[in-house]
Amino acid sequence: MNDLKQNGDICRGRKPVIDLLAKSPSRCSKLIIADNVRPPFLDELLDLARSKNVTWQIAKPEALDKLSGGEKHQGVICRLTQSKIIELDDFIKTLEGLNNALIVVLDHIEDPQNLGAVIRSAEAGGASCVIYAKRRAAIPNDTVIKTSAGASLRLPLIPVANITRTIERLKAADFWIVGLDGKSESSIWAEKLPERCALVIGAEGEGLSRLVSENCDILKRIPIKQEGVSSLNASVAAAIGIFEWSRNFILS
Amino acid sequence: MNDLKQNGDICRGRKPVIDLLAKSPSRCSKLIIADNVRPPFLDELLDLARSKNVTWQIAKPEALDKLSGGEKHQGVICRLTQSKIIELDDFIKTLEGLNNALIVVLDHIEDPQNLGAVIRSAEAGGASCVIYAKRRAAIPNDTVIKTSAGASLRLPLIPVANITRTIERLKAADFWIVGLDGKSESSIWAEKLPERCALVIGAEGEGLSRLVSENCDILKRIPIKQEGVSSLNASVAAAIGIFEWSRNFILS
Repeated sequence: MNDLKQNGDICRGRKPVIDLLAKSPSRCSKLIIADNVRPPFLDELLDLARSKNVTWQIAKPEALDKLSGGEKHQGVICRLTQSKIIELDDFIKTLEGLNNALIVVLDHIEDPQNLGAVIRSAEAGGASCVIYAKRRAAIPNDTVIKTSAGASLRLPLIPVANITRTIERLKAADFWIVGLDGKSESSIWAEKLPERCALVIGAEGEGLSRLVSENCDILKRIPIKQEGVSSLNASVAAAIGIFEWSRNFILS
Repeated sequence: MNDLKQNGDICRGRKPVIDLLAKSPSRCSKLIIADNVRPPFLDELLDLARSKNVTWQIAKPEALDKLSGGEKHQGVICRLTQSKIIELDDFIKTLEGLNNALIVVLDHIEDPQNLGAVIRSAEAGGASCVIYAKRRAAIPNDTVIKTSAGASLRLPLIPVANITRTIERLKAADFWIVGLDGKSESSIWAEKLPERCALVIGAEGEGLSRLVSENCDILKRIPIKQEGVSSLNASVAAAIGIFEWSRNFILS
């Protein structure tokens, strides 16, 4: 949780900040630019800030170093507005009555780069939200903003205390729970995924925990060549699952 | 090319080395273990080395630091046997007469982590090889071994001087050239991919270069939600393309 407190409220680096200003200006509370940033990048920043009505200030590079906690910032940091905490029950209500909806549930993804990658794919594939565990798992911080290409600032991200209990609540809200599990007999391509689908992704290495796996309605395997030798990265497996659902229902 | 010379011939770190010993022992020429590595990991290493007939030696941690060029090694490094340089023409001959074959062609992927991720997905999806540009692009080094989970030591990787000329040679060998291009009108799911397929993946950000794009037989788009806002990581796009081919032909 410390990581969130320190870094969750800033976005740093040239590309992430430009993306943020262009695509999520409502999340920018203040743009801070080091006094050694030069044109043409400086002009690009100031033009964007003006056109999006984001206030900005010039500061010493040392001030930015302090703000980023020593992490690389390339001379530009944006302070973010506080993100609203979204409660699972409130969010589920917004999906009532939808024929098609995809929720991505992360059963303890540990690597922030994987978390960012999954959030990016979830947004691009049309998922409604990403649910993640509050503890013993990666949480959305500034690394995640970067690796998600800003998607973590746009897609609803819902922290929960307990994944198994969350699955029960999703079932009660008419979601069908599909766990990705390399040991399953059933191929993800054998039949269409459910229309209202909660796709559960396990941790890197270990996969789904036993309790979570037992609580899924179905387990699906992504078939791979040379089982036991080759393998899929957790964020790639998630993307294949997400886009399989998209292909079936909303994007093809 | 310096990177290849310095690091291409070692594999470092606990998980990568254990994977290498277990899955690609023929690529291990010598296992080097720091004298501060303790059981149970030490026993695991030695048991594997013995069962796979890999010679090993204990050394001072400083010796490993030097060997890894200062990169993290967690007390264990494996020297690799020289990989054979594979020539494109020779390799294409091995695919003659196959009804189904997938070749992944990288049009200047720049990030070694993306390169590793694509190679891992290519192996898992049943691709025959990965072709990459020798210059102005990421090359297979020890970072790539790690991010590919060792796949870069097993799957044939073919360096080429010129991607456009390579495409011409693949066409002459009865491959159908499919470029992934977010600006294409045609969805990758609209019809089956070709049986003998060369899937061309563009660089992060810029995508396919103009000349390469003009030389593809068809361009296909992975449909995404909120075009212009959301986006796909290059390695995720590659994985979706690779597994779309797999789903059509070999793994479903």
